[in-house]
Amino acid sequence: MELTFSAKAKKIDDGMRVETTTRDFTLLIDEPPALGGTDTGMTPVEAVICALGACQTIVAFAFAEAQGIDLRGFHVTVDADLNTDGFFGKDPNVRNGFTEVRYEMHFEGPHSQEEFEKFAAYIEAHCPVGDIIANPTPIIRTGVVVHN
Amino acid sequence: MELTFSAKAKKIDDGMRVETTTRDFTLLIDEPPALGGTDTGMTPVEAVICALGACQTIVAFAFAEAQGIDLRGFHVTVDADLNTDGFFGKDPNVRNGFTEVRYEMHFEGPHSQEEFEKFAAYIEAHCPVGDIIANPTPIIRTGVVVHN
Repeated sequence: MELTFSAKAKKIDDGMRVETTTRDFTLLIDEPPALGGTDTGMTPVEAVICALGACQTIVAFAFAEAQGIDLRGFHVTVDADLNTDGFFGKDPNVRNGFTEVRYEMHFEGPHSQEEFEKFAAYIEAHCPVGDIIANPTPIIRTGVVVHN
Repeated sequence: MELTFSAKAKKIDDGMRVETTTRDFTLLIDEPPALGGTDTGMTPVEAVICALGACQTIVAFAFAEAQGIDLRGFHVTVDADLNTDGFFGKDPNVRNGFTEVRYEMHFEGPHSQEEFEKFAAYIEAHCPVGDIIANPTPIIRTGVVVHN
């Protein structure tokens, strides 16, 4: 089944505060002062790693029973490196996005290390946001609308 | 300069509600009822497109002046397709993540269509989240910790 998700982003005042909305939900994004913001919300790249952790968590609970796992608790920590020399144009060989993303999964339940490692690999292979980060996705500008 | 961003995700009650945190900021993620959730927050993939729109908005305002653009307003709409046959294992040829992401940029300011289209391409080329979506990023599981 093909689903289409939609979002809107709009700068809401001076500084760098951006209100993003999708359906009835809102997420305020900001930058730290060093990047012109007022640090009132997470940055866009932090929102991406929050989404990754949430996606892995949901996949874990959605598929645990079918994978024979009695999952009594789960959390995940995510770290991601970004070299700002790309974004600030100091080094054309450095990309703008993350150079690496790492995560550590914590499981609670009556299973062995080996069983949870196998389940961790299953989660990794079924996580939509993990797929979006790990693999290329076509991203297309459909229009530029000018309001004079 | 190399920065490392960190986040944590943890399921907080029955259903599919996940609390994600990064620094002092929190984003509650949920799923609609069809996916076992209670629809109290955006989904992980919606958080990704919110992050993309916010990132483009911040890049636009961060670089407008240096690019000779008098940017008086900006918003962007993002749409992303996802075929759930991948996630639900119905078709092994369908990926778990987005099949395509599209965005439409809206500019306010005293410039021509051509000038804003050139600036739109500049934003696209400098957006960290756009880079993360468009290009592959190494994503590494560093550990599986079992709490019995």
